[in-house]
Amino acid sequence: MSDTSEFDNATEVAPDGSARIVDGWDIGGNANGGYLLAMVARRMIAVAGRPDPITITGHYLSPGKPGPVQIDAAVVKAGRRFATVQASMRAGDTAILQVLGSFGDLAAMEGGPAYANGGPPALPPIEECRGRPRVQEATSVPLMDRIRVDLRPQDTGFAAGTPSGVAEVAGYFSFADGRALDPLALLLVCDCFPPAVFNLDITPGWVPTVEYTVHVRARPAPGPLRCVFRTRFVQNGCLEEESEVWDSAGTLVAQSRQLGLMPR
Amino acid sequence: MSDTSEFDNATEVAPDGSARIVDGWDIGGNANGGYLLAMVARRMIAVAGRPDPITITGHYLSPGKPGPVQIDAAVVKAGRRFATVQASMRAGDTAILQVLGSFGDLAAMEGGPAYANGGPPALPPIEECRGRPRVQEATSVPLMDRIRVDLRPQDTGFAAGTPSGVAEVAGYFSFADGRALDPLALLLVCDCFPPAVFNLDITPGWVPTVEYTVHVRARPAPGPLRCVFRTRFVQNGCLEEESEVWDSAGTLVAQSRQLGLMPR
Repeated sequence: MSDTSEFDNATEVAPDGSARIVDGWDIGGNANGGYLLAMVARRMIAVAGRPDPITITGHYLSPGKPGPVQIDAAVVKAGRRFATVQASMRAGDTAILQVLGSFGDLAAMEGGPAYANGGPPALPPIEECRGRPRVQEATSVPLMDRIRVDLRPQDTGFAAGTPSGVAEVAGYFSFADGRALDPLALLLVCDCFPPAVFNLDITPGWVPTVEYTVHVRARPAPGPLRCVFRTRFVQNGCLEEESEVWDSAGTLVAQSRQLGLMPR
Repeated sequence: MSDTSEFDNATEVAPDGSARIVDGWDIGGNANGGYLLAMVARRMIAVAGRPDPITITGHYLSPGKPGPVQIDAAVVKAGRRFATVQASMRAGDTAILQVLGSFGDLAAMEGGPAYANGGPPALPPIEECRGRPRVQEATSVPLMDRIRVDLRPQDTGFAAGTPSGVAEVAGYFSFADGRALDPLALLLVCDCFPPAVFNLDITPGWVPTVEYTVHVRARPAPGPLRCVFRTRFVQNGCLEEESEVWDSAGTLVAQSRQLGLMPR
């Protein structure tokens, strides 16, 4: 684990809210939506005075391009358990991302009754998985140099023109530089796998996110995360994609759902 | 269908944003969260100049009590396809609900590729279902006079102290006065069934909502809706509850997910 991780450097926000979308966290020139949300969340955490995002929602208004941005955040209500904050990211006059989130302290929430109807996805050993394949030769994927995504082999057929037919993708996540996994990182994790709809009989392409919500359910234990992404319904040009993320100890650490637009 | 439905009257908002939480939409004195969200969404629709909520998220800050409230809404971005709006509901100095949503025109979005991994819940004929049972004799449920919720019989054991053990509840929804079902009504529908965790071995009680997101996927056809609510994971005092809502023609019309707190 590095003291100055790429992720921490790339999500830095000055006390006045000025920040920079760093080159290298994009796919085909558009910064990853989870990366952008994590940057905004860092500012929201500072304003909230609470360590952890508990539930956070971003609406994506324009693609994020490398360069300076302004992040403004304001507390809506500071309660006993949670503080609710609204925030925005703008590049000049262009609105990029609008966010609403509630922040708290996961360590203080531990315990109580537990119930699980489901568990981590079945994955082969990490050395039998494979990296995120490129689906369009013309599209660069610098994001994949920052993170390590090891996919379940049967979910990678889309790259060879043989999609599985089921809109599901699963695999492991780590940072390429070994940065520790924490609640902030989970906001990136839940948005950085290949879209599950790539495994349908469609032409893979950009799946713009309209809205993306993450629930952080626990602080992750060290080690690679086990992640699964599923789309159950595509209709009227929209899809929902949901994820579950599990830590190495078998604890559910995050769930997400986003509304996206089908590639055109 | 009535020209002046209870729901339309209860969600009325004046052009200056003044409105009223109407008595009779509560459980034990706290107004239903879906009702409150629908009221705020009506103001957002007016400000957006778009007919339909497409994805909307509310963070619940204080219980809503009958009486006057102020709803403020502002457009964050008006795009070609969607307009994104942020809004708040306050009662005097008390913040009740903070909302972020994107609005569009579902009629203009129809068509395109379709995929479904799942379908409507299996339900017996409506006349074999039963109304929402009361679980605490001391708690009044006036909401149930406004709506008609007909539950699948095997999901109602919690009322007799024999929960099914699986956190799932399914049934039909209509308005008591026969009001038509539309996207605005879906914001209520996805929050007005008994919590799915009532079917676990817990003492039923108030499940406060932290955050509640609805994706409206299509305009409903006439007739009762088929709804299913599931909680898959309870841990650290929190639960997620998700719903799917299907119209009488078998079309998925809404999905929701909320983060709630376990009853104490």
